[in-house]
Amino acid sequence: MSKDIPQVLKGFRDYLPQEAAARKKIISKISEVFERFGFAPLDTPALESFDLMKGSFGEEEKLIYKFDDLGGRKVALRYDLTVPLARVAAQYPNLPKPFKRYQIANVWRAENPQKGRFREFMQADADIIGIDSIIADAEVVAAIASALKSLEIGDVVVKFNNRKIIDEVLKEKKFADKDVVNFLRLIDKFDKIGEKKVSELLKEQGFDFKLAEYSDEMRKKGKKFISEFETYLGSFGISNFEFDPFLARGLDYYTGTIFEFVLKSKPEFGSIAGGGRYDNLIGKISGKDMPAVGGSIGLDRLLAALIEANLVSPQTAAEVIIFNLDEKLTADYLNIATNLRNAGIDTEFYYESAKLDKQFKYAEARNMQVAVIFGAEEAKKRKVNLKNLQAKEQVTVDMDDLITQVKSMLW
Amino acid sequence: MSKDIPQVLKGFRDYLPQEAAARKKIISKISEVFERFGFAPLDTPALESFDLMKGSFGEEEKLIYKFDDLGGRKVALRYDLTVPLARVAAQYPNLPKPFKRYQIANVWRAENPQKGRFREFMQADADIIGIDSIIADAEVVAAIASALKSLEIGDVVVKFNNRKIIDEVLKEKKFADKDVVNFLRLIDKFDKIGEKKVSELLKEQGFDFKLAEYSDEMRKKGKKFISEFETYLGSFGISNFEFDPFLARGLDYYTGTIFEFVLKSKPEFGSIAGGGRYDNLIGKISGKDMPAVGGSIGLDRLLAALIEANLVSPQTAAEVIIFNLDEKLTADYLNIATNLRNAGIDTEFYYESAKLDKQFKYAEARNMQVAVIFGAEEAKKRKVNLKNLQAKEQVTVDMDDLITQVKSMLW
Repeated sequence: MSKDIPQVLKGFRDYLPQEAAARKKIISKISEVFERFGFAPLDTPALESFDLMKGSFGEEEKLIYKFDDLGGRKVALRYDLTVPLARVAAQYPNLPKPFKRYQIANVWRAENPQKGRFREFMQADADIIGIDSIIADAEVVAAIASALKSLEIGDVVVKFNNRKIIDEVLKEKKFADKDVVNFLRLIDKFDKIGEKKVSELLKEQGFDFKLAEYSDEMRKKGKKFISEFETYLGSFGISNFEFDPFLARGLDYYTGTIFEFVLKSKPEFGSIAGGGRYDNLIGKISGKDMPAVGGSIGLDRLLAALIEANLVSPQTAAEVIIFNLDEKLTADYLNIATNLRNAGIDTEFYYESAKLDKQFKYAEARNMQVAVIFGAEEAKKRKVNLKNLQAKEQVTVDMDDLITQVKSMLW
Repeated sequence: MSKDIPQVLKGFRDYLPQEAAARKKIISKISEVFERFGFAPLDTPALESFDLMKGSFGEEEKLIYKFDDLGGRKVALRYDLTVPLARVAAQYPNLPKPFKRYQIANVWRAENPQKGRFREFMQADADIIGIDSIIADAEVVAAIASALKSLEIGDVVVKFNNRKIIDEVLKEKKFADKDVVNFLRLIDKFDKIGEKKVSELLKEQGFDFKLAEYSDEMRKKGKKFISEFETYLGSFGISNFEFDPFLARGLDYYTGTIFEFVLKSKPEFGSIAGGGRYDNLIGKISGKDMPAVGGSIGLDRLLAALIEANLVSPQTAAEVIIFNLDEKLTADYLNIATNLRNAGIDTEFYYESAKLDKQFKYAEARNMQVAVIFGAEEAKKRKVNLKNLQAKEQVTVDMDDLITQVKSMLW
């Protein structure tokens, strides 16, 4: 047959077992930390009305996956997890406030695929809605910092700033609204292209505002906020933080504190998490104002970092395999498998009585730990051979001691 | 403002914290059991090429969510998890076989929304590809039975049949292909509409084949298969099974063993899981034949059953809340929260020094367990009050004993 082999769509990717298992572990650790901070899980659909998303993503709106459904509704795949949360806040006004939720789920963006950037990727968001408090801002940062710490990816630094202070500083300069947007876009490039280049660009575009002067005024006007925010971060046990007057963040909807996390050892990797306060978004969507703050971890970027650092375990299957030496013993093999599984041990059975060599290769390819070797001779004596596949050592034990012995070899 | 409140799309639903938490627990238990049986996780994208899905779902194909993406490709939201697995098998021919994978993920179907039927729902699938073995068939059934058992939803029964035996029996009757399809569709209604009604319908449509006669022939021709399959199920520790000659299953692609699980106490609830052998699907998609067997748990139906049976925990937030009695003590409160969290205890802090009454209500609405009550008096003495919110009892302890005491109140 000359059929084309079907492929995953361009810009999308599969997570084969090794990476899927690593991602699963990340999800589970982040969930655990978010719950420790009192965030409760929330799940919303992948599809939302396109109207809901209109106007929240600026120029990026064109990257939304949208289409007409069978009923003629304009629907879209969610572009982030914040707009659906705003919809939830509007639709269920009786949710007790403050409402602290986390959601770990895929979002879809029709970006030009580049190295490491995909059209489907997973975000882990934690948000607090219904309260305007700098403590809530600090707690979101602390929750994300703790989640990142639990992943053992090395030290992270959180850079923070405040849109209100930027506004105050620029207001004194009497910038027009569109100049504010332009100015923010330029200073936000500071980390990527450096001070010199940003200064040149500012000059080119006619901004009469030196970076050093801007930075000084930000620190002066921000003094109270910076000191208070740093105190709270300290109380939450966070020590790696840094006020960054050049941090601006892309999204339109931020209104106060903003923050971004970078890896200390790899700042060039860019932001691995970020967020901020967005007190107007829910009101814009629902007609009823509601303060909110939240942050998001880019889970797939993190996974890429973990894989690069060789922190992903190679084991992709069960810990124990039962070799098939004699098809007449199938019922025994399945009994042994069932007993091991009931004892909480991940166990596989090799279905066919293939050559032992082939069965060993199967087990090695999957990095299994222990092989159970049981033939007619052993059956007669109620004995069983256990081979440690890593240390290449074999022992023979009574069938009754099987589980104890396997456990001692695994743990 | 007179803006319309935005709503979740028709046929879709949100999982608010209580149900999201319950669903999370189900996912985690099922994953654990599937891994114990040696299945490894796999994640595939929500979107696939529409071409991939064409021709696998019969009449249901019209329910696929499909659209043109920005690059003009015909894409579709996945309709099940089996076709994406077949694509993975074709795209990565070097995956070591047998390949045992599980995937727990949403699928999308543009069904007419009815009570309990949604357009986005979650499936938990376990499949074994690359081997044609009745032991693999039995192991998939055993894995699903064990997963269902771990959810403590009460006893389940698995009904099984075999498409090959149906084919043999109908071949002797010299049924035309379209009559086979019609006959299967009719007998599959046996559980829903009963023997009498099915008999009438068969007569109406001109089938000269009595149900009792069909059933006898199935048991006769199926004798070897039934006995072997039941032996293996027994070896896997499964006891509630039943050969059902009237089970046919809707999907076109099954070729051998088929099975369905029902709740023993609620057969009227219908199938909560099902699956079978599909040896032609991967070949049809990739041009290279590959045997396969798998099953799927309808996770959202199960969740509905758990909710109906009141098996969903009402707790939706942290176990411990730190009340805010005095804003001057904020740093202390955050320290206490951080210490409790570091000890693994889910903890919230009430952001504002509101009336205590209001703070108690907040904690009660979320079914929290313990309130930490700490004011200026306590701060002086390094004491802290702990209130058991369920038993309504309060104790005063030294600050140094806080964690030990809270733990003893929680566990």
